[in-house]
Amino acid sequence: MEDIFSYLKDNQSGSLKDLVDYLEIPSISSDPNHKQEMVNCAEFTAHLLKNAGLDEVTVHQTKGHPIVTGSWRKAQNKPTVLIYGHYDVQPVDPIPLWTNPPFSPHIENQRIYARGSADDKGQILMHIQAIKAILAVKGELPINVCFVIEGEEEFGSANLPQFLVDHGNELKADVALVSDSSMWEEGFPAITTSLRGLLFLEMTLTGPNRDLHSGTFGGAVANPLEILSRALAQVKDQDGRILIPGFYDSVKPIPDSIREQHKTLPFDKNSYFTNIGVDEGWGENGYSTLEQLWLRPTFEINGIWGGFINPGAKTVLPSQAHAKLSLRLVDGQDPDNIEKLVTGFFKATLPKSVKLTMSRVTGGGRGVSVPNDFPPLIAAKKALMETFNQEPLLVGEGASIPVVADFKSTLDLTTLLIGFALPDACPHSPNENMHIPTFHKGTESLVRLLYYL
Amino acid sequence: MEDIFSYLKDNQSGSLKDLVDYLEIPSISSDPNHKQEMVNCAEFTAHLLKNAGLDEVTVHQTKGHPIVTGSWRKAQNKPTVLIYGHYDVQPVDPIPLWTNPPFSPHIENQRIYARGSADDKGQILMHIQAIKAILAVKGELPINVCFVIEGEEEFGSANLPQFLVDHGNELKADVALVSDSSMWEEGFPAITTSLRGLLFLEMTLTGPNRDLHSGTFGGAVANPLEILSRALAQVKDQDGRILIPGFYDSVKPIPDSIREQHKTLPFDKNSYFTNIGVDEGWGENGYSTLEQLWLRPTFEINGIWGGFINPGAKTVLPSQAHAKLSLRLVDGQDPDNIEKLVTGFFKATLPKSVKLTMSRVTGGGRGVSVPNDFPPLIAAKKALMETFNQEPLLVGEGASIPVVADFKSTLDLTTLLIGFALPDACPHSPNENMHIPTFHKGTESLVRLLYYL
Repeated sequence: MEDIFSYLKDNQSGSLKDLVDYLEIPSISSDPNHKQEMVNCAEFTAHLLKNAGLDEVTVHQTKGHPIVTGSWRKAQNKPTVLIYGHYDVQPVDPIPLWTNPPFSPHIENQRIYARGSADDKGQILMHIQAIKAILAVKGELPINVCFVIEGEEEFGSANLPQFLVDHGNELKADVALVSDSSMWEEGFPAITTSLRGLLFLEMTLTGPNRDLHSGTFGGAVANPLEILSRALAQVKDQDGRILIPGFYDSVKPIPDSIREQHKTLPFDKNSYFTNIGVDEGWGENGYSTLEQLWLRPTFEINGIWGGFINPGAKTVLPSQAHAKLSLRLVDGQDPDNIEKLVTGFFKATLPKSVKLTMSRVTGGGRGVSVPNDFPPLIAAKKALMETFNQEPLLVGEGASIPVVADFKSTLDLTTLLIGFALPDACPHSPNENMHIPTFHKGTESLVRLLYYL
Repeated sequence: MEDIFSYLKDNQSGSLKDLVDYLEIPSISSDPNHKQEMVNCAEFTAHLLKNAGLDEVTVHQTKGHPIVTGSWRKAQNKPTVLIYGHYDVQPVDPIPLWTNPPFSPHIENQRIYARGSADDKGQILMHIQAIKAILAVKGELPINVCFVIEGEEEFGSANLPQFLVDHGNELKADVALVSDSSMWEEGFPAITTSLRGLLFLEMTLTGPNRDLHSGTFGGAVANPLEILSRALAQVKDQDGRILIPGFYDSVKPIPDSIREQHKTLPFDKNSYFTNIGVDEGWGENGYSTLEQLWLRPTFEINGIWGGFINPGAKTVLPSQAHAKLSLRLVDGQDPDNIEKLVTGFFKATLPKSVKLTMSRVTGGGRGVSVPNDFPPLIAAKKALMETFNQEPLLVGEGASIPVVADFKSTLDLTTLLIGFALPDACPHSPNENMHIPTFHKGTESLVRLLYYL
């Protein structure tokens, strides 16, 4: 592959030029005033794909912003990799905190600063450049590839799931590849091998048929806020273990190999907690912080409201109490089943005079995990090791990436998440940036990956 | 006293005329646009007192609405009764639900409908008419009286406590009399012999230094909403008993005589709970509903808020959680001490990573109770019995009437609460009304009371 790497080296300024052009398009998907820029950015994405030598490049209209696809499928009897990315970006507020305008890419200290440089235009472009280089030098790719680049990732990906259903045949592949995450630190590549799923519920408890005076009625009537507190307090025991019957039934134990691997990760627990201003961690006993964050399911209260919540005093015994709840699920847990278990658990805690309604607000994504012996994972480890001269860290992600769950459920694809943003890349924040040497090295590793897959 | 009763009978239309004039003044204390009407109403109250033959009638300016006083102190070596009332009224929304305009008194079915008819202008006027009649017929009163009629009761009585301090000498008395409550039902007089005090607190729990992503951080960081739920759930045991150490230390057991008396009260527990739409009561085991409402202290949650409380989903692990709490205290419990106990209790429940701040929003009124052998109580029972031909019921009130606590703490006065509104008088609601026969009978009972005191 040395000839490909030489080509890449010779064309670094061209790659950067493409990146600058890409970053200059203010593709803020959540801002209705940027609708035309979104179209422009989809067209430019298509142009980049065509220019790299991909076939069947198409800009698909959706009810929202366009989805761009392109493929190269001439490697007979070879596997296919589906590469996902998004060309839309987050809003740029607060603008005064940007050192340079967010859509005027600025290069300084080996970094390029602009909205989208890390999340995700820079990382998309690495994949495109890798393929462009192979096709330019070799005339063909070692495997088949297929791109799906959407424009609504920062805005809920409302139209992607149906698109995957509708285009299942064209998108047939053997593995998915997503570069929309971070390295552990500069020079330390990381592969995300587990993601938690999400179930987001809203519960309402209703007691008396109207708000009551808490002096006149207090003491003889169940207060929905008190019943809610009691119900929520019963969810976990003193060890932080969730007491909802059946909740852990399909949760597999964490393999010893993973536990050992975590111990080798350069994770500084103290600075992690100091950074968020708490004196200590607080979670399920018997698990390390990283296991709590990446590999164990959670029950989290995202909001509670009820009664009088304005300044001052009002002695009300409210008719209703509300809570928003989110459960992070791990591989094996079925969101529909968990929702039933949660509802049943709360129903059983209530006195007769308080009624429960439970509804799903969003979510339903399952947790996913990549087995240690998954061949594409082994290929990725090799590609990253050879490029960065550093064994890649296998990490988890506590949050959910819905597209990964969608790839699994709709296309039956396992996803490899290999990210090239540095930890201080500031995605979603002012002064977002991409480290240029990592941009080039990452591209090199992606060339290797296409060969090893 | 027959001559006095004849006088009252002959002057019923004059009394009603005074009431109508009084009710026509829209003295809504909480509405800044009604400032002039408040002054007018204070002046009219003074006019009624003067017209009844009281001396030293004065309209005192305050930082808010005026306070009106008047007295008659010519009964040497006789006790003095302080009569309290308020000339201000609640707002009148929602106006469409009034059958007649709220400040155009309308007589129908032996009732006079208008805002303030029951709460409290009608009841003030009964006291004034009783004194007017005695003075008109006898030329002197059997005891000394002193009126304090304020204009901010429906608005927090902000200026009354200081007024009582500043005018302690002029207001010297042996017992206080307040008619601002209800009969048990038509023909069934009631004397309120216990009131609960109030301590209103606001607590805030602070965990991480900012709102966190509940996917990324959930599972390893104490969530203030969860800690709040756990803390609040620990306040009571399964029997509804408050577990805050020391909370009950100065609570006296309910005397057997009171418990027996309660059993004779025509209280229909089922319709009480049906009316507010709950299947059953829920309170401290071992106490009847009335005991729970009137004679036992409570811990009530009036509001909880924190995290994301708007429509939709946001996976936030919030930095803070808040609750508004009110404790109803009974005779013997010291609010300052209870606040310390509550704060200490919550502090002890928290993990190291969550901090508590507790502040008092309002309240601090102690609970009060009138001993069964208190001579003015015996006098009041006799006066009501003779008038209504029905033994008055001795009841409690779960809510707080701050002025009663202030009379105790500032003037060392025990207060008798004798109310003449009927249970369907709709105070604070549309179509507030006063039952005219009860208005006249009540006036008669107050004449007797002045003689028996």
